[in-house]
Amino acid sequence: MILHDFLPSGNGYKIRLLCAFLGLKVTLKEYDITKGETHTDAFLAMNPSGKIPVLELDNGQCLSESNAVLLYLAEAHQSPLLPTDLIQKAKVHQWLFWEQYSHEPNIASPRFWLTHNAMNDLKKQMLPDRIQQGNAALKQMNDALCSQNFLTGNTLTLADICLFPYTHEAEEGGAYDLSDYPHIQRWIRTIEALNGYISISQKKF
Amino acid sequence: MILHDFLPSGNGYKIRLLCAFLGLKVTLKEYDITKGETHTDAFLAMNPSGKIPVLELDNGQCLSESNAVLLYLAEAHQSPLLPTDLIQKAKVHQWLFWEQYSHEPNIASPRFWLTHNAMNDLKKQMLPDRIQQGNAALKQMNDALCSQNFLTGNTLTLADICLFPYTHEAEEGGAYDLSDYPHIQRWIRTIEALNGYISISQKKF
Repeated sequence: MILHDFLPSGNGYKIRLLCAFLGLKVTLKEYDITKGETHTDAFLAMNPSGKIPVLELDNGQCLSESNAVLLYLAEAHQSPLLPTDLIQKAKVHQWLFWEQYSHEPNIASPRFWLTHNAMNDLKKQMLPDRIQQGNAALKQMNDALCSQNFLTGNTLTLADICLFPYTHEAEEGGAYDLSDYPHIQRWIRTIEALNGYISISQKKF
Repeated sequence: MILHDFLPSGNGYKIRLLCAFLGLKVTLKEYDITKGETHTDAFLAMNPSGKIPVLELDNGQCLSESNAVLLYLAEAHQSPLLPTDLIQKAKVHQWLFWEQYSHEPNIASPRFWLTHNAMNDLKKQMLPDRIQQGNAALKQMNDALCSQNFLTGNTLTLADICLFPYTHEAEEGGAYDLSDYPHIQRWIRTIEALNGYISISQKKF
């Protein structure tokens, strides 16, 4: 499998982290998204959205949308990271959709604007509202983690792998302070200590 | 089952439409989201995000995030609307995540601002960029539909049920003109002609 990716991307890191936990080998092909490298005809043929990550399977088929790729890999490898019980599975799905709507735009986007020199006047005006919503999202995670080790209970699932990347980097750029969220801090340390864990910048796993 | 909902919501309508197609009976409990009715303690206990739709199962368990609810209902009823082939399933998942990140914020949110008197100076400034991204999303759907009847092929799936609500209402508020997207217009007419179809304002099904 080839993972078309941009190393600083949390969306890409989700898939790398899952592959590392599952012991799957993938070849990394890197693109600089800040230089339009995902808007070539060749890339758009893989993903019309022009976005990494894209997982190219051995048969040449391409899967996009990071959380769809997580679900595919977990099901294809019958991993307990995606529960088979339908209610438990729905709880994992909930966090995956919530991440794309309520967490990523408020936490990952401001981090990108602040760390990749991508701020402009409109984004500066949008920032306070994004930060308010981002803190509401972090509070919701912190509340969920106050009585259990992981987001859906006491075992690691795709929900944690999905939410880990942009949460553990939330402070980059200065918009967020995780010391306000002690249960999230403990959860981060728990995941970092798991067998197979890799950092966001680790290319070999 | 009880569906906690707000009738004009496209996210709620997704679930109502799926229930109608599957022949499932649900009791509708309505909330006016413009009056804070989803921010009571009782509602937050069902969904800490304070958002409709919430599906309350017969055993009292509550599921939120509209697309997670679609997946739950389709799997619980072993509906072919969610393919069992893992690649085909991943293609459905792709559209579901894409809808929450690339479609809903650009198409549903501006519609809400423009039709529910929710516009302010900042939103006015954000609008041109949202509309540009919304048109890119509609173009992507139109392209996908140019050679097939439905989003993932020639049979209806959850991808179509998920994308139908906010797409068929995209023109409300005046931000979008669907006559630019003839394949989407045909797809809308195809879905509206299906057995079991209900409109967004239909309470009985």
